[in-house]
Amino acid sequence: MAPRLPVPDLPVANHDDVDSMLSRKFGKEVANYFSGSPLNRVSFLRTDHTFLSAALNHSTTSFLLFNKLNPLTKDPTQLAFATFSDVKPLIGSDPYQQDEKEIVKAYNSSAFTPQLIFLGLDDRNKEGLVYKDAYRGAPFFALDVTPQKHIVAEAEKVIEKVTKDTGFTFAEGRMNLSLHAQEAAIYAEARHMLDWNSRNPFCAQCGQPTLSTNAGWKRSCPPTDSANLPGGATSTTPETPRERASCATRQGISNLSFPRTDPTVIMAVVSADGERILLGRGGKWPKYWYSTLAGFLEPAESVEEAVRREVWEESGIHVGRVVIHSTQPWPYPANLMIGAVGQAIPDGENIHLGNDAELEDAKWFTLEEVREALRVGTSGLGEDAGPGYKEGDLRLPPSTAIAHQLLKGVVHGGFLAGVVDRPSI
Amino acid sequence: MAPRLPVPDLPVANHDDVDSMLSRKFGKEVANYFSGSPLNRVSFLRTDHTFLSAALNHSTTSFLLFNKLNPLTKDPTQLAFATFSDVKPLIGSDPYQQDEKEIVKAYNSSAFTPQLIFLGLDDRNKEGLVYKDAYRGAPFFALDVTPQKHIVAEAEKVIEKVTKDTGFTFAEGRMNLSLHAQEAAIYAEARHMLDWNSRNPFCAQCGQPTLSTNAGWKRSCPPTDSANLPGGATSTTPETPRERASCATRQGISNLSFPRTDPTVIMAVVSADGERILLGRGGKWPKYWYSTLAGFLEPAESVEEAVRREVWEESGIHVGRVVIHSTQPWPYPANLMIGAVGQAIPDGENIHLGNDAELEDAKWFTLEEVREALRVGTSGLGEDAGPGYKEGDLRLPPSTAIAHQLLKGVVHGGFLAGVVDRPSI
Repeated sequence: MAPRLPVPDLPVANHDDVDSMLSRKFGKEVANYFSGSPLNRVSFLRTDHTFLSAALNHSTTSFLLFNKLNPLTKDPTQLAFATFSDVKPLIGSDPYQQDEKEIVKAYNSSAFTPQLIFLGLDDRNKEGLVYKDAYRGAPFFALDVTPQKHIVAEAEKVIEKVTKDTGFTFAEGRMNLSLHAQEAAIYAEARHMLDWNSRNPFCAQCGQPTLSTNAGWKRSCPPTDSANLPGGATSTTPETPRERASCATRQGISNLSFPRTDPTVIMAVVSADGERILLGRGGKWPKYWYSTLAGFLEPAESVEEAVRREVWEESGIHVGRVVIHSTQPWPYPANLMIGAVGQAIPDGENIHLGNDAELEDAKWFTLEEVREALRVGTSGLGEDAGPGYKEGDLRLPPSTAIAHQLLKGVVHGGFLAGVVDRPSI
Repeated sequence: MAPRLPVPDLPVANHDDVDSMLSRKFGKEVANYFSGSPLNRVSFLRTDHTFLSAALNHSTTSFLLFNKLNPLTKDPTQLAFATFSDVKPLIGSDPYQQDEKEIVKAYNSSAFTPQLIFLGLDDRNKEGLVYKDAYRGAPFFALDVTPQKHIVAEAEKVIEKVTKDTGFTFAEGRMNLSLHAQEAAIYAEARHMLDWNSRNPFCAQCGQPTLSTNAGWKRSCPPTDSANLPGGATSTTPETPRERASCATRQGISNLSFPRTDPTVIMAVVSADGERILLGRGGKWPKYWYSTLAGFLEPAESVEEAVRREVWEESGIHVGRVVIHSTQPWPYPANLMIGAVGQAIPDGENIHLGNDAELEDAKWFTLEEVREALRVGTSGLGEDAGPGYKEGDLRLPPSTAIAHQLLKGVVHGGFLAGVVDRPSI
């Protein structure tokens, strides 16, 4: 049997569909928006240039294009994809022709190639690439077509080709996107990876320029440079590239070379008696809008410790028990949201905003207020609340936010409903 | 009431103590080794130079010294701490005298100051610092005393002072450390932070040198430089510092400026019938030694997706349901281990090591084999198994490893014992 990831075979649909399908297949797993990707990343093939060449130029291959981190879309709910022939003028006929060692050896810091990322194989497509009789599916890539450096003219041509007469546009700003769940997951992977590459053109260890390798999943610090550097070059031919200063990332493996994901805790805090929920609000949010507290996990903290620290720092509340609920990738720019439910300790429920000045307000709400807000008061930050919402009542984030899922977990059937009521093996 | 983190008031003890104390106080929370810090980080005070000055020079202040990332210890189970007067020759009488804006403005890339980190306040010490009548405890700092650059002589003097006639040594290598649980958590915070600073002397966004700020918790990319750079300086007086190239990290907030923690998944996988457990081994491990599979979470994956991908890539096994069990900070160099239990799907239990070549072997073990190994076959990687171990039987990691806790969770009372059997509110 060919290896196949047990990804649920979902129709492209909205968040609730993913949720219920995963529940049927995997038990009570809460699948949050931006997770649920249909792609098999086959991460071990990212260094296999024969595979990458084949994947690049297959009849089923799709390219998700980004202009300044904005994806090409058909409409706010659907991505648009380009073909290899669309992007060939920009990336050449085969950027994976050489193996990686040769590419590193030939490194030239004065060259600029648009960032290309291999995303994975969609094995739902039965016409997809078959590699080594073991890995199959339609290949997906992400490509940065932002007009910049010496690719301005070619990039603009590609942009014109994919937008002219198609109605496709580069969606500006995340508030204008409401992608169906599976495309949201593909978009999240692509955006996170393009953003990471664009933030790391230099090596934090030695300060020298880095090179994209591993099909976009690594930034290498090459030992030599074939460029004629202004004011400092000693070599003029590619045969005798300049030696660069030594760098610790070339000895062994350094996390600096690999994509960064920032673990973040986000938590619904219930009162000691389980009757109320703590919510907070930022100063720029719409009136009456609250959400769960959140913050970055710090070095050498467990998730539970990060939850207790963040809640105390932002609201003064002392949390005892913490239960992890579910997780959500969040590609703005690079977060893993770890959703938890915490319970305040009986003598620690007094709100005090004076420690950290992050929140404009924090407040205890009854379960009933939260239940009602989940029913009629949810919306995106820039949108109006739903029909039935009464001005002055609590407003909450939409179902695509893990905050919403956490609150749902708490108020419908007790906060442990989504965590504990799993059928046991 | 003064704000106080609800950290359990534990005696310095071993891992099992932390585990049972946390269980009593917080319900069935599994506290792994390296978590359970007694320190309140008061993270919002890291930019308050008045607080930092007071914390630095208090009668209860402790400095944990590191030489090449090795901590000063009394013996393998206990850290040794230095006083302000010990380190004053190296850091000066008050490195926090100026506020941060002034420090950034005065940035001079040719200066070198040893890395200093504020770790937190231990509020169990009733003689500790009291700040603004709200924050109290004995301050803890970490300091890098590695002899380097132009501090070689002063650093060597400090090292001599703290080791001569004390019997204290800088523990070499993590295999030689078996710190009591709470000191392990302090050490983990300090090591993670010192390592992060030492890996990031340059800005990955622009390639220019960075400056430690926020009491060691941030690396800033200053807009000017007062150094006389060799071959390129245009200014000679600090009054007219050289403007540096622009950098995106100075506009708004960039994650590059803040410590990095890499989320990692580690998982006990049980067979579809719940009777066996999947374990794997690396090529360099002692004979018969196995552990749970593990790997880095990638951008835009939920924890559950990362577990399924890693298990399939490393072993060919297809995992369905995934339950998060507990988390563990792991400061080698910068991981958050997210422990999970997964269940193979019925037709996905065939082991295939050919996808990713990471493991030397992967194998299904019976619950009884794992139970017996937890009883007599656990030890550190470099140690012998316990008494009662029979050559040829399974060996497993010690209780300080989350792998051990995951397996314990599975074989004692069913894998959901630690996750599901919580008293509901």
